[in-house]
Amino acid sequence: MDQATQHLYMNKGISEFSYSSNSSVQKQAIYKTKIVVEQAILDILSKFSSSTSISAAEKIRSICVADLGCSSGPTALLVISNLLDTIYNKYRESTMVMPEILVFLNDLPENDFNTLFKYLKSFRDELKNTKGDGFGPCFVAGMPGTFYGRLFPSNTVHFVHSSYSLHWLSQAPTGNESNKGNVYIAKSSPPSVVEAYCRQFKKDFISFLNCRSEELIKGGRMVLTFLCRKSSDPTSKEGICSLLGLLSMALKDMVLEGVVEEEKLDICNFPVYYPSLEEVKAIIQNEGSYRVNQLETFQVNWDGSDSSKGDSTTDVLKSSYVIANSIRAVYESLLTSHFGEEIINELFVRFREIVKEYAVQEKTEYTNLVISVTKGEMI
Amino acid sequence: MDQATQHLYMNKGISEFSYSSNSSVQKQAIYKTKIVVEQAILDILSKFSSSTSISAAEKIRSICVADLGCSSGPTALLVISNLLDTIYNKYRESTMVMPEILVFLNDLPENDFNTLFKYLKSFRDELKNTKGDGFGPCFVAGMPGTFYGRLFPSNTVHFVHSSYSLHWLSQAPTGNESNKGNVYIAKSSPPSVVEAYCRQFKKDFISFLNCRSEELIKGGRMVLTFLCRKSSDPTSKEGICSLLGLLSMALKDMVLEGVVEEEKLDICNFPVYYPSLEEVKAIIQNEGSYRVNQLETFQVNWDGSDSSKGDSTTDVLKSSYVIANSIRAVYESLLTSHFGEEIINELFVRFREIVKEYAVQEKTEYTNLVISVTKGEMI
Repeated sequence: MDQATQHLYMNKGISEFSYSSNSSVQKQAIYKTKIVVEQAILDILSKFSSSTSISAAEKIRSICVADLGCSSGPTALLVISNLLDTIYNKYRESTMVMPEILVFLNDLPENDFNTLFKYLKSFRDELKNTKGDGFGPCFVAGMPGTFYGRLFPSNTVHFVHSSYSLHWLSQAPTGNESNKGNVYIAKSSPPSVVEAYCRQFKKDFISFLNCRSEELIKGGRMVLTFLCRKSSDPTSKEGICSLLGLLSMALKDMVLEGVVEEEKLDICNFPVYYPSLEEVKAIIQNEGSYRVNQLETFQVNWDGSDSSKGDSTTDVLKSSYVIANSIRAVYESLLTSHFGEEIINELFVRFREIVKEYAVQEKTEYTNLVISVTKGEMI
Repeated sequence: MDQATQHLYMNKGISEFSYSSNSSVQKQAIYKTKIVVEQAILDILSKFSSSTSISAAEKIRSICVADLGCSSGPTALLVISNLLDTIYNKYRESTMVMPEILVFLNDLPENDFNTLFKYLKSFRDELKNTKGDGFGPCFVAGMPGTFYGRLFPSNTVHFVHSSYSLHWLSQAPTGNESNKGNVYIAKSSPPSVVEAYCRQFKKDFISFLNCRSEELIKGGRMVLTFLCRKSSDPTSKEGICSLLGLLSMALKDMVLEGVVEEEKLDICNFPVYYPSLEEVKAIIQNEGSYRVNQLETFQVNWDGSDSSKGDSTTDVLKSSYVIANSIRAVYESLLTSHFGEEIINELFVRFREIVKEYAVQEKTEYTNLVISVTKGEMI
């Protein structure tokens, strides 16, 4: 199954189980990385549009930003909205001319760009209402294509952002052994499966870094957020890895009862990978095009609440419902295509029960990684 | 009824009566203006990417082109395909490095960009098959928005193309008098209606020229093709004007038989305008941003055959069927929203009969206008 098919699964319109209705985890992650994005944008403005630090030839009238893997739900425009706020706040009390802004919203060609473009109208109206006509022109285009290949002309992009997309691989890892009874890496996975996952992530992430390095202007910035794990051991039971373990458990129960074919589960490898901070750091350093400004992890509760504030809901029943729906929103179509539509409702009822029991005893947190880098400025 | 709603009508998927299945007229117009587009692109390449005529600072690694009002059918990528052929042929036997190409496909936000982006995949595959890996990167983005407003950052676009879109107005003209019994300007239209149409076109076309003038790089080129009329008299019965007159006739017959409400017909003004060559010339000269390289008319038969070759089909029955379908493809949704879906089949059966009788006696040709201009180089 290729990346195109997988991302398609994430964009099936707005319903009870859709990503649009169940994206509170990503929203929380965007909120928690807002300051990182803000710092990167302010750096770009001071580098490229200030009249003091650069020569006339390098002055620009327009800034080009790209959000990669934007999907089509309400979060698709959230980062762009924050970014425009930052620019607006910097210029509204200054005499400097605000740069024009060209935004590229990227996702795979199968993404629902029609819905995304419909949101743009109310987005523009709100921009006008809150910021008035004085706000410089902002142009928003859709760029269909995989971000593991080239998307933009060389040396044209000032800022790249990507949230909750880079843990998706370009394809499920292929190996000789089956990952028996698991949809992702688990304690029981054969070493060859674990290695195949690590290799695929490394290959994809290097492609991503190479391509963006071609496209970013020297001094341009990139902020990436994705799910990761704390442990250096890829088989460790924590965060999203343990959550996918619980999903495998629900599927295994259904195999035992004869509702799901064992062979089908054995060959189902989700095309995702949750690296450790050290893995990511090593790949970026080896690739060699970027200076790392920030590389750190933060936690978000499985139900989307802020784990640092300890405001995880104490209602385990409600929380497990939210968690099951959010996992369903992301993986439903992938599961449907692999196991058939008829098992989905039952699978998620079972999964919710398993999550509920687990949540009483264990920590239910995702570990997130946020990386902020500058192109072409080495350490 | 605004432009958004009107263009939506043109994009309703592929069926017997869809624009995709009935766009032979536009295809013929694209074929007939191919050489004009080719000359403009070659001029851009020699101006901006040759190593002899410009200073190092002005050399570019990428060329930005925009197709405005591209719609979502197969013709949407036809112009881009021709344009890439021209670039490929220029570079394949030279030692010069081919520029990267950024293409913006524009239409209103209601356009079916999802379908358009799906065509892109086979388009890319064909590009690779016919031109090999040596062909430089080509990036294709969708830019939703009205071309009567700004679409791109200032001084960033090298080439603008638009085919069969600029005869669509931003809105139907408003006036105090009704255009009794007609869907467009006719001999019987009150002068105030004729004036309102002319005024709306002038306003829209000036906006278009102003916006593109901001966006085009100095020396950048623009090629526009749209339907027009030969006569200086807007009420003259010729080309598309007479064809819409035949459509009004069919509707009037249905009014007489009580199938269509008279009031509904009286307030139906199609949001289109077919100017004369002189009108267009005067507006471009007054606007003042462009040097006109070429401004001429050419004919295409109503059934999409090449009128200059005299290859209009002699089978009037078949021809009237093709003509009725092509008009239905363009105006069906507009008519449906105004008169209701239930009259459509009958209307087009009647229209086809009227066209058949007319075609036996009269010339059945569209007059097209092709304009090629250069930004910022006055006469």
